[in-house]
Amino acid sequence: MERAPRLQDVAAAAGVSRQTVSNVINSPGLVREDTRERVSRAIADLGYRPHAAARSLRTRRSSTIAMHLDPYAGGISGVVLDRFVHALTDLAGERGMRVLLYTGRDHDEEIARLAELLDGGEADATVITGTFHGDPRTRWLAARRTPFVAFGRPWGEDDHHSWVDVDGAAGTRKATAWALDAAGPRVAFLGWPAGSGTGDDRELGWRSALPSQAGLRLVSEESVGDARAVVADVLASGAAIDALVCASDSLAIGAHLAAVAAGRADLPIVGFDNTPAAEAIGLSSVEQLPEQVASAALDLLLDPSGSATAPDGARHVLVEPQLVLR
Amino acid sequence: MERAPRLQDVAAAAGVSRQTVSNVINSPGLVREDTRERVSRAIADLGYRPHAAARSLRTRRSSTIAMHLDPYAGGISGVVLDRFVHALTDLAGERGMRVLLYTGRDHDEEIARLAELLDGGEADATVITGTFHGDPRTRWLAARRTPFVAFGRPWGEDDHHSWVDVDGAAGTRKATAWALDAAGPRVAFLGWPAGSGTGDDRELGWRSALPSQAGLRLVSEESVGDARAVVADVLASGAAIDALVCASDSLAIGAHLAAVAAGRADLPIVGFDNTPAAEAIGLSSVEQLPEQVASAALDLLLDPSGSATAPDGARHVLVEPQLVLR
Repeated sequence: MERAPRLQDVAAAAGVSRQTVSNVINSPGLVREDTRERVSRAIADLGYRPHAAARSLRTRRSSTIAMHLDPYAGGISGVVLDRFVHALTDLAGERGMRVLLYTGRDHDEEIARLAELLDGGEADATVITGTFHGDPRTRWLAARRTPFVAFGRPWGEDDHHSWVDVDGAAGTRKATAWALDAAGPRVAFLGWPAGSGTGDDRELGWRSALPSQAGLRLVSEESVGDARAVVADVLASGAAIDALVCASDSLAIGAHLAAVAAGRADLPIVGFDNTPAAEAIGLSSVEQLPEQVASAALDLLLDPSGSATAPDGARHVLVEPQLVLR
Repeated sequence: MERAPRLQDVAAAAGVSRQTVSNVINSPGLVREDTRERVSRAIADLGYRPHAAARSLRTRRSSTIAMHLDPYAGGISGVVLDRFVHALTDLAGERGMRVLLYTGRDHDEEIARLAELLDGGEADATVITGTFHGDPRTRWLAARRTPFVAFGRPWGEDDHHSWVDVDGAAGTRKATAWALDAAGPRVAFLGWPAGSGTGDDRELGWRSALPSQAGLRLVSEESVGDARAVVADVLASGAAIDALVCASDSLAIGAHLAAVAAGRADLPIVGFDNTPAAEAIGLSSVEQLPEQVASAALDLLLDPSGSATAPDGARHVLVEPQLVLR
């Protein structure tokens, strides 16, 4: 095919004016039955599709969801967000929607780029990720009444918008319950410094599963090397640990390397995110199910007709993660 | 802001007709100087942007690059493609272009979905990935003269289209040269079964760096477990190996696990892809530089004015990967 057929090609094939073709598409009641049939046949024969841009102008619906994509940051757990992008694209496609990616170096630039896309009619709705307390994006989106959903809770902010998140506490609770049963009562937790919503939530799940709600809590930055050093110190100190539940796979891999080096390769360790890295070295981990998050986000964003809804009636979905044992 | 300002808002603010506003935007020579200034001021005051859909209809340029995104397949090396998507989005954004993602369960569906986007004027150009010998997509795109570039060589196919690829042979050559120098002459290669363009290319780099062009070649499926078993067998057999260059990080991690289990934790092993998993466990690896691939792809796709060019004058770029030692 040299190029897509246009309105004038249909008009020529059917022997009618361009206006008549347009009428058949947009106001078929205006057109005589035999003319309508002739034009419809030409449309089918030529494979003509009304130009999407024209359709978008008419309906002010671009069938497009904009999503901000951060620059690649490295690290093990970025794969969770990338899995979400894959799933969102796939599931949106099934509903006749597209995913348009945009970037921005900070939240102000992110808002400015999103404003261009929304004002320009290039997107109807947006999915935002990495929300935090005081997030300027959610307030801005709510004020302009743009349909949106967040992957991530507002963490203490008023949550007058729809969001989907993973129930991190449920994940570490499952991991801890398994470790108590499989290894013994002294299940320690390796987490990040207190103060991050996600990290505190994961710690909470561990603590709530302990019989006495008291246990050894270790703290590390989100890095394999730091986690390895922290766990090496603790093991060298002779602390009695039956198993270790971690806030991330990076921490779990660091802990695993320290355990192997200390001759405790058999120490049960559970990570979080179920990344390919954890799978590759055979570590158990909590699986976030980003495909379910994407599905729930689309459910919240789109009304049953498939168009993006206004952000009234905020709804929240917590996806319960799975424990993957290895 | 309640909604984006429209043409009629500008017309009302400037006290002119909608047609006059349209003329100021599209044919300013038709409009008197004082009127033009009044309308330009109203456009600036209101922050009006000509509706992108209308702009697209007029110029038949949507400033959008379509890219197929496979469903998430798991595995360690998928991160390379995701890094490419991040970089393409970021660099395209700097040039005023967007990246629109679409899916398709097979190549026929991929072509059908892409046809919709191109016919509908929703995308001007496309980047395809995972090309192979006899790829129906490249022939289809070339026949309809759609601007496109492939991430990946056509591997034996006529290459009458533009592509960017990573010079895998250069990567394994560097890895092998380093291993010969650092560890000794018996540098083995762990690769996939013969017949894949990418795999054969990486083997070639290893072989070309060996003094005698002869060395131990091990074969594994692309799986940590299989690689681990293969390398465990070879080490148990007492084969003399000074170092191991691998076709992927999955293979390298499997080899590393086998080496540790066999008491050869010090065996130098080099992976390929420089994934977070290899970094986490401290393995050296060949870094594909997907950001440079994305940059080169955009250079090939866009003419200096930033619009997508026709696929005449196919050009090819081989990005030389880096060896990351750990």
